[in-house]
Amino acid sequence: MSIITLTTDFGVGSPYVAAMKGVILSINPKTTIVDLTHAISPQDVREGAIVLEEVADRFPEGTIHVVVVDPGVGTRRAIVYARIGGQQYIAPDNGVLSRVMRRAAPVEVVRLENDAYWLPEVSATFHGRDIMAPVAAHLSLGVAPRELGPLHESLGEIAWPVAVHRGDRVEGVVLRADSFGNLVTNITADMLLGRPTDGRACVVCHLYETWGIYQTYGEQPRGTLIALIGSNGALELAIVGESAAERLALEPGTPVVVAWE
Amino acid sequence: MSIITLTTDFGVGSPYVAAMKGVILSINPKTTIVDLTHAISPQDVREGAIVLEEVADRFPEGTIHVVVVDPGVGTRRAIVYARIGGQQYIAPDNGVLSRVMRRAAPVEVVRLENDAYWLPEVSATFHGRDIMAPVAAHLSLGVAPRELGPLHESLGEIAWPVAVHRGDRVEGVVLRADSFGNLVTNITADMLLGRPTDGRACVVCHLYETWGIYQTYGEQPRGTLIALIGSNGALELAIVGESAAERLALEPGTPVVVAWE
Amino acid sequence: MSIITLTTDFGVGSPYVAAMKGVILSINPKTTIVDLTHAISPQDVREGAIVLEEVADRFPEGTIHVVVVDPGVGTRRAIVYARIGGQQYIAPDNGVLSRVMRRAAPVEVVRLENDAYWLPEVSATFHGRDIMAPVAAHLSLGVAPRELGPLHESLGEIAWPVAVHRGDRVEGVVLRADSFGNLVTNITADMLLGRPTDGRACVVCHLYETWGIYQTYGEQPRGTLIALIGSNGALELAIVGESAAERLALEPGTPVVVAWE
Repeated sequence: MSIITLTTDFGVGSPYVAAMKGVILSINPKTTIVDLTHAISPQDVREGAIVLEEVADRFPEGTIHVVVVDPGVGTRRAIVYARIGGQQYIAPDNGVLSRVMRRAAPVEVVRLENDAYWLPEVSATFHGRDIMAPVAAHLSLGVAPRELGPLHESLGEIAWPVAVHRGDRVEGVVLRADSFGNLVTNITADMLLGRPTDGRACVVCHLYETWGIYQTYGEQPRGTLIALIGSNGALELAIVGESAAERLALEPGTPVVVAWE
Repeated sequence: MSIITLTTDFGVGSPYVAAMKGVILSINPKTTIVDLTHAISPQDVREGAIVLEEVADRFPEGTIHVVVVDPGVGTRRAIVYARIGGQQYIAPDNGVLSRVMRRAAPVEVVRLENDAYWLPEVSATFHGRDIMAPVAAHLSLGVAPRELGPLHESLGEIAWPVAVHRGDRVEGVVLRADSFGNLVTNITADMLLGRPTDGRACVVCHLYETWGIYQTYGEQPRGTLIALIGSNGALELAIVGESAAERLALEPGTPVVVAWE
Repeated sequence: MSIITLTTDFGVGSPYVAAMKGVILSINPKTTIVDLTHAISPQDVREGAIVLEEVADRFPEGTIHVVVVDPGVGTRRAIVYARIGGQQYIAPDNGVLSRVMRRAAPVEVVRLENDAYWLPEVSATFHGRDIMAPVAAHLSLGVAPRELGPLHESLGEIAWPVAVHRGDRVEGVVLRADSFGNLVTNITADMLLGRPTDGRACVVCHLYETWGIYQTYGEQPRGTLIALIGSNGALELAIVGESAAERLALEPGTPVVVAWE
């Protein structure tokens, strides 16, 4: 039983996703293919990296995650195979794996160069279909990663803003809006451990502030701005029953501060 | 062979759907997972209930339908297992099952309280991933519903507007817009039985009226407002080749009257 | 191992897609169902035809492609089974197969008239669910196409604009925007063979012109209008990192000319 997931910026409903599935099923008709998401913003490697970190580890060990967020397609960027934390990844070496790498070190990284596992004809603009999909399918049939190409020295990393304790405060930033419009920050629950979460805690983001850190959305009336610890263990800003991203119009990178009275 | 469907308000393309699939496949890699829809309007329990009634019975007997339209997540609302009309459901007890219950009475309702079948860590905000998905996967492996928790006395119901005969007319309301923008009403074909459907029948909705009740969209030119019996046996208002919901801007709840000359 | 793909204009997230899947799985729970796309513009038979040509051949031989882009549903248009180029299709006879037919001639075309393979109740408006889905499922179980109905003489075709050499130029049109907003033309790489692709080649479309024909998007800075040969071997106009369709607001049918200095 093998599982392949697909993460792309092709847009929901793109037939190009189906082209990749057709290629995979032509090589291994028994594999299970799961859409991780196709709604990554075009060429947004950072968003891809965050989503992978949130979701990939939920899959069974050995799952093959194919990641096509690839602004450099057709240029000299490498495409790699990497085993990280029990999961397998096929992705361009552009930093899209740099958040899963914070959880576990890659144990085997190979540069995809052996075209025996590619489609016979490789276009310049769709390596997801012509290289990554067939390689994933061959892997799912038991091909050893070492056969895919030479070892790849080191994976590119993206710098991520780090949340810090500064005096009596915790300072971070908005990382992204999730699909509900909740603003997920880079402040983790650990950083707030041992501090009050009741009305003495104040969370400030741009012009907005809210008091108390909640456990769930249902504790306050619709329309209320609240701070809470989200399902991935990070501090979020949410508007109950609405989209905070739309209502507050805050971009990734906006500073968030937690302070206490 | 087991089938699990997912119905959520996460939005099309949400990676949170993939997180649920990863959890399910980690427990039962052989199950078939089908997206019923992820386009339910945020927290719209009524829309979820209507969609389930339209679609769930199309699946093989014993299919497990996981429904995550859950404005009360993290509060004290129960999550239940229910067997209704040959289908199995896992859903919050918030009325989202109240339309499938109009077709058949629930024969076994259990409150999910046995955390042996949950993920080891349960967040306060994502019970779909942490409770419902793993319970569905365990059910698909043959766990008996009674092991999931105590019997649950009665399922919450939502009041639904009822279409009525009043004198020589039939009066109902718009229930929802479907994905084509057709306005589906709560007036069923049965209620029109024995009455003329030709030009003597007049359907009035807000400021709009149309004459005759058609069988299909292709009978009138593009742009024409028509009434017809839709694929689920209910009276619909449609604009041929366009979206009636957008063009007429009518909300669910708008009165619809069928009268005859 | 059987594979069924679904191509519809129901819209991404439509529960009607799930209704078709439920019907298929009720007849053959072991089939693998793949979404080809549900984002075809409503009733846009031409777009459906182009997408099928781009993607269907990527699937394993014998895959069954169900195509529900069917403005004539409920009228007297035929629904057919056709085997074309190793793939199997179930579609209305409205021209939606006319581009895959340019690649290979249909070898077996049957009109779906044997209602033994349909759902017992057939609505007037949803033949995708009531006729095409169950027929596909029965085919996947081994029913012979000839049992589905009588031979169908000839399949309807749509006229497609043809790119031509005129003097020293190549003249074509924009066929469609893909999901990235790239404008795909009907000028194929073959037609440019032997001609310079460097700065001497000029591509003109409406008020816009660009020099050189590139291999990939990454060769020019973000925001640049470029011409390149896309992954399906056709000339495309793209804006690096953005949507040319949105930025240039060009419709399918807009003339495109390639000329040389």
